[in-house]
Amino acid sequence: MKVEIINIGDELLIGQVVNTNASWMAAELTKSGMQVVFISSIADDEDAIHSELDAASKRADIILLSGGLGPTKDDITKKTLADYFESDFVFHEPTYEQVKKIFAARKFKVSEINRQQAMIPEKCIPLLNVNGTAPGMWFEKEGKIFVSMPGVPFEMKSMMTGEVIPRLVKHFKLRAIVQKTVMTTGLPESFLAEKIKDWEENLPAHLHLAYLPQPGIVRLRLSAKGEDQKALTNEIEHQVKKLHALIPDSIFGYDEVSLEQVVGELLVKSGKSVSTAESCTGGYVAHLLTSIPGSSRYFKGSVVSYANEVKTQWLSVDEETLNEKGAVSREVVETMAATVREKMHTDYSVAISGIAGPDGGTPEKPVGTVWIALADESGVYARRYHFGEHRGRNIRRSALAALDMLRLKLLK
Amino acid sequence: MKVEIINIGDELLIGQVVNTNASWMAAELTKSGMQVVFISSIADDEDAIHSELDAASKRADIILLSGGLGPTKDDITKKTLADYFESDFVFHEPTYEQVKKIFAARKFKVSEINRQQAMIPEKCIPLLNVNGTAPGMWFEKEGKIFVSMPGVPFEMKSMMTGEVIPRLVKHFKLRAIVQKTVMTTGLPESFLAEKIKDWEENLPAHLHLAYLPQPGIVRLRLSAKGEDQKALTNEIEHQVKKLHALIPDSIFGYDEVSLEQVVGELLVKSGKSVSTAESCTGGYVAHLLTSIPGSSRYFKGSVVSYANEVKTQWLSVDEETLNEKGAVSREVVETMAATVREKMHTDYSVAISGIAGPDGGTPEKPVGTVWIALADESGVYARRYHFGEHRGRNIRRSALAALDMLRLKLLK
Repeated sequence: MKVEIINIGDELLIGQVVNTNASWMAAELTKSGMQVVFISSIADDEDAIHSELDAASKRADIILLSGGLGPTKDDITKKTLADYFESDFVFHEPTYEQVKKIFAARKFKVSEINRQQAMIPEKCIPLLNVNGTAPGMWFEKEGKIFVSMPGVPFEMKSMMTGEVIPRLVKHFKLRAIVQKTVMTTGLPESFLAEKIKDWEENLPAHLHLAYLPQPGIVRLRLSAKGEDQKALTNEIEHQVKKLHALIPDSIFGYDEVSLEQVVGELLVKSGKSVSTAESCTGGYVAHLLTSIPGSSRYFKGSVVSYANEVKTQWLSVDEETLNEKGAVSREVVETMAATVREKMHTDYSVAISGIAGPDGGTPEKPVGTVWIALADESGVYARRYHFGEHRGRNIRRSALAALDMLRLKLLK
Repeated sequence: MKVEIINIGDELLIGQVVNTNASWMAAELTKSGMQVVFISSIADDEDAIHSELDAASKRADIILLSGGLGPTKDDITKKTLADYFESDFVFHEPTYEQVKKIFAARKFKVSEINRQQAMIPEKCIPLLNVNGTAPGMWFEKEGKIFVSMPGVPFEMKSMMTGEVIPRLVKHFKLRAIVQKTVMTTGLPESFLAEKIKDWEENLPAHLHLAYLPQPGIVRLRLSAKGEDQKALTNEIEHQVKKLHALIPDSIFGYDEVSLEQVVGELLVKSGKSVSTAESCTGGYVAHLLTSIPGSSRYFKGSVVSYANEVKTQWLSVDEETLNEKGAVSREVVETMAATVREKMHTDYSVAISGIAGPDGGTPEKPVGTVWIALADESGVYARRYHFGEHRGRNIRRSALAALDMLRLKLLK
């Protein structure tokens, strides 16, 4: 089944909103065996919506729209769809009940604007919006399915998972595409490509490899299309095993797992705990670790020592060492790691100190120079890294390198 | 001038990559007075690229492509474009010099794969990629401009800013669209809509208002199209002033400024410093503050006290209070804020303790219950918030609420 995703909203065309809906929808549809053939972003404009509905129904069997359903004046999707499908409006009592329920939970009163959200086109099947007040709308026309969803991500997501995908799977006979994504860190894309060149060249023709690089991470996606799903799955597993033998340390997981999740699972499994002491990453490692539900089982806390006086007072860094070696030095990160580990009573700790930029670089220690230390019961060791010139990416790559240092330690 | 953005990459259609390129490009193009009329994501597939180039050149004057230029096997854009424009390949020495320079800076050797990046279609003007090895390609055909750029965001961005936009501005006569975005926090979208209803209804017809909600933030974008740019600018400023009078505390800034940036500027201006003590936000407030270049002028550090023992040992929280009132309580956040402020010698501090979820909620304190405290020389005060059920959004909204509490204090 071919799917087209249409995202409606002027805010997309002027770039004020990043279209995270499209990627999330595409991933979910792909997992369910549908093939997304086209994604578009178009204006909050009646003509644009009509002409894209026409074009999409030539390319795809299923047309999913998101956006433009809010209670405010610039959202015109509902009216436009009613016109397109030549439908009158009716008042839908269950939708109004849902609007009232949502507002009661938030302790707000229902306004007239919100009451109008219960007016829906007669020709659609309304879809429950468990997280919001605008219902979804399911239309069928000439064998094609059209579904309109809200643009607010968490409203759209619960509607996709709870209503749209189950209905589509039921309505069509769907076959899954087999794919596996190998998550790597520590090697740049071109290095990785050289290391696995022979393996890549010997892949069977019906297996497809894609490189998906991000700062600090390269994802390798293997996908297969064919008739026998079980045979394809086995074949992909076989190839991933061969790949793993080539780059065992670089692979930290599979299928969109995050490094912080992998580290969290290893800590839970080993019953160990961790703390962090952060300078240039400013709490970002702690944030990544605590973004995982249940992280209180292994993460105790962090000292973000941005100012040097916090390094000396809270983390026992010597003032003399700071003056002689500088805050970005082996000695300083080693002391930071050892102190926070000891004082927070954790099994492990990581410490990071570096020059994130844009200022603060010197010829000896240019922007992007970062020291990372790891402490455990056997002692402390540190390593120096050279990242790039961009602050945000330096913070991200430093944090990933610190987590990866911990991961490799936990595996040993 | 009408622009169409085509993003090439299977990874977009299966949803493994969020298309941040499209929004960034659209914002830059809009600022330069161009109108993005359509954004699409299509497959790494020769036919898909050819047919979308045909369709786009009917809708737009400028067609910008990103993606598919990497050195690896799944990137086919360059060959496809050479076919489309019926062009042979030539070796481009300056591009090869750039490839060598990039690799020297990273201390890597140039591989044969990388050397091939200097082979470019004869009919294009190559565009310098200061951050990478794949050059951009500028084609002209029947009065339309086609530009192909790399998909790696920071390579595409420097090429857009340094090459593509200046060339487009020069090539066409461009007129700016006037727009201003008002950044608000603290009021949900429908509340805001009620509060400003009369103002909104009385807007002149050629001014357009859009609501752009995100967790914890609602952006109001006013835009105007017309002939007299100066008159439009004045008119928008006049309307924004009227809006400000209606919701003075809710507006924290304009035009995509972040709350952490505004808080940072207020701290710099007042010469004050800040520290944080974080439980449920896990270092995220510190991360937001330190994401701003130069934040070391006002941010000293943070104690992330995820475990209760870190709260007692590092932040002087009483064990009895923890047992009686619980970690999510007025008493605990007030002590956290007061202690970190005193011990880090800062003018201000904020402290956060809450139940981010998904676990840990009780009937009395459901998931989403968060206490936030602010300390300054005059004392400490705290407020209780009720956010939602989603961990990531609760962390984000808690951090924004803490920053906003500090902002309002700094304004008084």
